[in-house]
Amino acid sequence: MSKSDRTGGNAVPLNIQEPTLLLDRRKAIRNIAKMAGKAQKSGVRFRPHFKTHRSARVGEWFRDFGVEAITVSSVDMAIYFARHGWTDITIAFPVNVLQIHKINDLAREIELGLLVESPEVVHFLSKNLAFKANVWIKIDVGYGRTGIPWDRAAAVEALAREVERTGNLGLRGLLTHAGHSYQTTSKEEIRAIHEDSIFRLRQARDALKQGGFPPVELSTGDTPTCSIVGDFSAVDEIRPGNFVFYDLKQLRLGSCSEEEIAVAVACPIVAKHPERNELVLYGGAVHLSKESLAMADGTRVFGRVSFLERDGWGPMLPDTYVSSLSQEHGIVRTTADVVDRVRIGDILIVLPVHSCLLAYLLKEYHTLDGTILPSESSVCAPTSQARC
Amino acid sequence: MSKSDRTGGNAVPLNIQEPTLLLDRRKAIRNIAKMAGKAQKSGVRFRPHFKTHRSARVGEWFRDFGVEAITVSSVDMAIYFARHGWTDITIAFPVNVLQIHKINDLAREIELGLLVESPEVVHFLSKNLAFKANVWIKIDVGYGRTGIPWDRAAAVEALAREVERTGNLGLRGLLTHAGHSYQTTSKEEIRAIHEDSIFRLRQARDALKQGGFPPVELSTGDTPTCSIVGDFSAVDEIRPGNFVFYDLKQLRLGSCSEEEIAVAVACPIVAKHPERNELVLYGGAVHLSKESLAMADGTRVFGRVSFLERDGWGPMLPDTYVSSLSQEHGIVRTTADVVDRVRIGDILIVLPVHSCLLAYLLKEYHTLDGTILPSESSVCAPTSQARC
Repeated sequence: MSKSDRTGGNAVPLNIQEPTLLLDRRKAIRNIAKMAGKAQKSGVRFRPHFKTHRSARVGEWFRDFGVEAITVSSVDMAIYFARHGWTDITIAFPVNVLQIHKINDLAREIELGLLVESPEVVHFLSKNLAFKANVWIKIDVGYGRTGIPWDRAAAVEALAREVERTGNLGLRGLLTHAGHSYQTTSKEEIRAIHEDSIFRLRQARDALKQGGFPPVELSTGDTPTCSIVGDFSAVDEIRPGNFVFYDLKQLRLGSCSEEEIAVAVACPIVAKHPERNELVLYGGAVHLSKESLAMADGTRVFGRVSFLERDGWGPMLPDTYVSSLSQEHGIVRTTADVVDRVRIGDILIVLPVHSCLLAYLLKEYHTLDGTILPSESSVCAPTSQARC
Repeated sequence: MSKSDRTGGNAVPLNIQEPTLLLDRRKAIRNIAKMAGKAQKSGVRFRPHFKTHRSARVGEWFRDFGVEAITVSSVDMAIYFARHGWTDITIAFPVNVLQIHKINDLAREIELGLLVESPEVVHFLSKNLAFKANVWIKIDVGYGRTGIPWDRAAAVEALAREVERTGNLGLRGLLTHAGHSYQTTSKEEIRAIHEDSIFRLRQARDALKQGGFPPVELSTGDTPTCSIVGDFSAVDEIRPGNFVFYDLKQLRLGSCSEEEIAVAVACPIVAKHPERNELVLYGGAVHLSKESLAMADGTRVFGRVSFLERDGWGPMLPDTYVSSLSQEHGIVRTTADVVDRVRIGDILIVLPVHSCLLAYLLKEYHTLDGTILPSESSVCAPTSQARC
């Protein structure tokens, strides 16, 4: 098996030996350009969620499109991006009071946005936050995960009053994540969720206005909605994240085309089972996560499969998918034709069900032109730095 | 909220601010002692699988029980443990020919065991392996993931002949992983799988004997079987891994008691929703993995929940479980009583569905006596070392 045999004569300067996270930079930049253009056309702030890529280097690509404000999902991720020059960061996760020291460090250095939904957390911040921060009241527009339900006007108003009474918190606006858009089966349903969300956010804002509050901002933005809806002028900012890479879940929802999926995992073939048209990949749950998609017949799919090609990866192979994952093994169900065509030591490409977990699991990106981009997760565990 | 309030007056010297992997050292050592004792009583080699803990420090605990040989699931894990003084390592994963340089480095330094199941890999090793190694022929006794089906005597014999013809490979034995034991619903079923596995492995060995081969070793050992079956004298070595920590999956299979589960994830409470008896934890898919257990009514459980206590964690709370996970959020369904009892900033304990992924995700263990034990995953990504 010569090297060119193993990679199908691929000219991409990659030396893949183990499961490797590939990033097609051109696709990602096109995805960013498209979403930034949409935000600009709608006249809203584009505050992309950086939890998907978790990479300072990928983050830089957004600056070319005028992005100055970002969203993250943890205090540690905020610290990471603040260290890399981002000065306006919203942590789109309920305040974790146990991390108040880190939150104070951030609030001293940057324009920090925090999410609140309960009087006790506002009270805690009023006593323990040593610097000014913006707060967004988290509104539940129907997802049912976190936030004050949109129609509890009294609770929203009471929390806003609580914020007003503090000396260190400024009420920036109302924020929602319409995560139920992920449970839809048609673009129409996604559009309907968007309409509802906007209506509900505005109702909550109107209630505040009637309570004597000045108008506050509205922030929204899951990837399905932001990809499918064209106009966002009803809100002040959008915060999609996944769109930078997309994945099979988004493809199924109709948020993206196959050609827009910008990341994939390259996996070596380690065994062939022609008798049952299966291949065994080095690439398991620790590389791909256990995220799966349910097919109409109940089959679970942990990834779709394609060949490595000269300039990236080819189209998804028909009747070919990752059918199960162990810790390190991935089993590919495929056709006799594919089994015939590949050899042990060849690389197969797995398109991910959910791209947001890949950066965390695989720690670094290999772009198709041979650059390695570290993610936040390639940094050592906090307490282990001395051991590196 | 004073600190003692937040932790329920817990005396464990832990300063938990974010999702933290707790390890009850006494429980883990008891689990090791029990399994080592069983192996000794059966007169078989105990070659524990280290993929569950992935930690050199935890690995040391096994030496006190006479363990000298170990199993790992990747070449990189073999390198990690070889660096920490282990000199007899089986990589229980089909040989990945693309990692031949690393395999050669290992074969030069240690007593290396490799798994083979195809003539092409044996042929590749005969040409490219620069040092001697032991090979185990992987036998499929019914799991259907990898290996030569046990009843294909001709294929097993042909591969053994292929191995014999090489100058650098020594045929050590036949190895299986009866992973279908994880799909059972009773101890009787697990015992039956074990009986079948032994019968099938022996049939394969007998076929080799009839072909003129000297008797080879038999290696087996998934955690459910090794926990439930008492006597292993029919084989030469056992390789269980998960038993060191156990988890909810093993508890359901009957492999362990609740008190034997030795790891759990401590998660801060960040929001309360009394109107639907839910709590929101800082603790999501990146901390707990998306592994779930299906209940009889179709409900999916991503973890069971208990309180942090003075000397570890308490019993699982009734009617309380992690019902869904986002990237960073965990939603706990519970009772009005529990919602009343806890406050934002308190710590809850999540008992994991599958403990094998935790070390990879959370990178280090915090023992109840306050020691931090790094895992292999706390080491930087290979190409990122310069950035630490």
